[in-house]
Amino acid sequence: MTKQLVLNAFLMSTGHHEASWRLPEIDPFVEADVEYFQDLARLAERGRLDSVFFADGPGLWGPIEGVARRPPQVLEPTLLLAAMAVATERIGLIATATTTFDEPFNTARRFLTLDRISHGRAGWNVVTTADTSAGLNFGYAGNPTHAERYARAEEYLEVVLGLWGGWEEGATVGDKAAGVHTDPARVHALDHTGAHFRVRGPLNVGRSEQGHPVVVQAGSSPAGIELAAAYAEAVFTAQRTVEEGRDFYRRLKAATVAAGRDPDHLKILPGIVPILGGTVAEARAKERQLEELIILDHPLRQLAADIGIPADRIDLDGPLPTNIRPVEEIEGNRSRYELVVDFARRERLTVRQILQKLGGGRGHRTFVGTPEQVADDLELWFTTDAADGFNVMPAVLPSGLEEFVDGVVPLLQRRGLFREEYAGDTLRDHYGLPVPPSLAARAAASDRALVGA
Amino acid sequence: MTKQLVLNAFLMSTGHHEASWRLPEIDPFVEADVEYFQDLARLAERGRLDSVFFADGPGLWGPIEGVARRPPQVLEPTLLLAAMAVATERIGLIATATTTFDEPFNTARRFLTLDRISHGRAGWNVVTTADTSAGLNFGYAGNPTHAERYARAEEYLEVVLGLWGGWEEGATVGDKAAGVHTDPARVHALDHTGAHFRVRGPLNVGRSEQGHPVVVQAGSSPAGIELAAAYAEAVFTAQRTVEEGRDFYRRLKAATVAAGRDPDHLKILPGIVPILGGTVAEARAKERQLEELIILDHPLRQLAADIGIPADRIDLDGPLPTNIRPVEEIEGNRSRYELVVDFARRERLTVRQILQKLGGGRGHRTFVGTPEQVADDLELWFTTDAADGFNVMPAVLPSGLEEFVDGVVPLLQRRGLFREEYAGDTLRDHYGLPVPPSLAARAAASDRALVGA
Repeated sequence: MTKQLVLNAFLMSTGHHEASWRLPEIDPFVEADVEYFQDLARLAERGRLDSVFFADGPGLWGPIEGVARRPPQVLEPTLLLAAMAVATERIGLIATATTTFDEPFNTARRFLTLDRISHGRAGWNVVTTADTSAGLNFGYAGNPTHAERYARAEEYLEVVLGLWGGWEEGATVGDKAAGVHTDPARVHALDHTGAHFRVRGPLNVGRSEQGHPVVVQAGSSPAGIELAAAYAEAVFTAQRTVEEGRDFYRRLKAATVAAGRDPDHLKILPGIVPILGGTVAEARAKERQLEELIILDHPLRQLAADIGIPADRIDLDGPLPTNIRPVEEIEGNRSRYELVVDFARRERLTVRQILQKLGGGRGHRTFVGTPEQVADDLELWFTTDAADGFNVMPAVLPSGLEEFVDGVVPLLQRRGLFREEYAGDTLRDHYGLPVPPSLAARAAASDRALVGA
Repeated sequence: MTKQLVLNAFLMSTGHHEASWRLPEIDPFVEADVEYFQDLARLAERGRLDSVFFADGPGLWGPIEGVARRPPQVLEPTLLLAAMAVATERIGLIATATTTFDEPFNTARRFLTLDRISHGRAGWNVVTTADTSAGLNFGYAGNPTHAERYARAEEYLEVVLGLWGGWEEGATVGDKAAGVHTDPARVHALDHTGAHFRVRGPLNVGRSEQGHPVVVQAGSSPAGIELAAAYAEAVFTAQRTVEEGRDFYRRLKAATVAAGRDPDHLKILPGIVPILGGTVAEARAKERQLEELIILDHPLRQLAADIGIPADRIDLDGPLPTNIRPVEEIEGNRSRYELVVDFARRERLTVRQILQKLGGGRGHRTFVGTPEQVADDLELWFTTDAADGFNVMPAVLPSGLEEFVDGVVPLLQRRGLFREEYAGDTLRDHYGLPVPPSLAARAAASDRALVGA
């Protein structure tokens, strides 16, 4: 069997296009509807996709006024995924959670619980939270700096992985005669002491069917790449052209090898916003309908914050100002900033056009066309080492995911690029990732290696 | 209709008796089985109970060796309850969460998410975490002191209630024509600044069908009573005799009135561990079978820690030592400490007998008898102002809950003490609690009152 594509469904209320909730056929109140999300998970599972995925931030994204223009994500994703887990059997379940505004013990526990509830289908997308307003909900005057967030994130990951590795396989024995429910000799404290955390452990949750949740990472700044190379098993990234995609792929795989890891154990998954139609004209008409529904005030404020220029000094029908803040001064989301600026200059767009295009996928690549064209495009990226798969971001839900599952997936299956059936039960099975040993098993293996040498 | 009893099912793996997992008919691996807990929730709902409830602590309770003797609670309760919410329609869903080792924004968000997923059936049991080892998982050398924990808890509650009150009713309008999804004028920042927290808000979750989760409190120390009188809508408590129950009831209701609140809006719910049999002899035999399965090493260490005397200096077949640590020096769970000491002295028990009795419900009252006798006992407590209802703690699950639902509940219904059908859909409906207004609605009402004066 040839190498297989990874396909995730990145879910967001009524879809990734910020005006999707205004379409005539859409229920604008689905953001709090657990049955709606359970149906989406079942749909993704019918398409044999690897996982569903949620972004997350501890607070409203941007200023309060933003709630007018698009549905906020109101349900905390680990709880939502727990409810989706029990409505499905195979689909992976990935939630984002921040390392900046929570404690590693709590995060480790919540995600391993999700992994147990779903029998090994959980993933944690590790973010440091670039949103400059989140810190205000946690006692900070603003957000911690980019460097502070990444230093904390690395130690946070070490602690979470250490806690996840504390229970050996088979620690729970249920020996009624001896009166031993769980063997204490196979449950280990962590005793971590570092610059940011002191955590004794052990966790009160034992190993899952896949060992522990898959570690996903989403930042593509130099610090993000370094963190991903060391820890990530999948990376969600925004790459706008296949050339940029190949360059990023090559750099990240090289960094993974340099970190002493098998590059196949890190899956690179660029985002794509497919807008599908039976003909190109039909697909373009859908895109136009969405663009016309965007109200530009909030996206303009968001852009203004990204580039560091007041909104009222930006001309909507002129080009992007040239006197924008240099990337080194950005304490927010550097990956997104660079992407927006490059895109605007390469395509010679007015600010209005930038905002209309960005409204589709917040910086991710929109592809407008027929299912055949989308399949061709995914195949090109996949077979020329620009991607191991994709984070599929439907512009409109549920219709965009239905069209992808019923239109694009069968084409990829016919070409031998995507599974017809799940080969295993866990997210690691779907991604082709190894089951991580417990820390004790790792130490024992390393002892045996020393004895053998 | 006469006043109605409140009945919660307090769930714990194979039951509250620590040896329950060793019974021949019990599956000892259910602690991580989400379907098992979904079935328990459906069973409680079939009995028209008010809610299911989970205790919680961020870490293993006690030393690692304890995992040998009883199943740890491995699934984080808010995620578990999210999975139980979608398997049920009416039953309330209450989880414990600490104010000492998390951030109020995160707790507010997770519980309001559970409230939205369940359409207004969530409750938060507020604890400060007495377990002396929990702090070691969060950077503390030990646990913060009792006084520190309660000072933080009060401000924590203020922040959580403030965040829950930030969204006005009807803030989400879904006005497609105007392009207004949610009205920003009806979503308010909190801007809290206090000794422990600075939290801007607003929360990214809007009001639930019952306004916000029911606030439950479980500490019965003087600081716990003060906190409960000011904030709690239900109190879980351990009272061993009906006289003690009446005294606690009277004191807490008086404190609630003194805090300016309607005493009917705080439900006092003592724990009871019913061990049921068709005859008294049958019930006693069940109790004996469980007591004989207890292995005393771990409970002895727990007792030793509670009373501040090394385990190897305690004589199992002698009385409780007299030179135990005075209550003022206890930084752990003061309510539990006092209860154990009083119980041992009143009943003139040997240490072995104490441990065997405590193994049933960790200090809560065990009642061994027929369904008729249990119903009589609950009626006595309820009609003589010792309780507004009960936190029912089956010694063995699922059988103990089945026996209660099928044996005791019909008797209480026949006596007109308990509902035949749910009268409403939310936990507040079941408990007979008012829906709290948003902060803005409260401020407006207070303005109107001033204008009218």
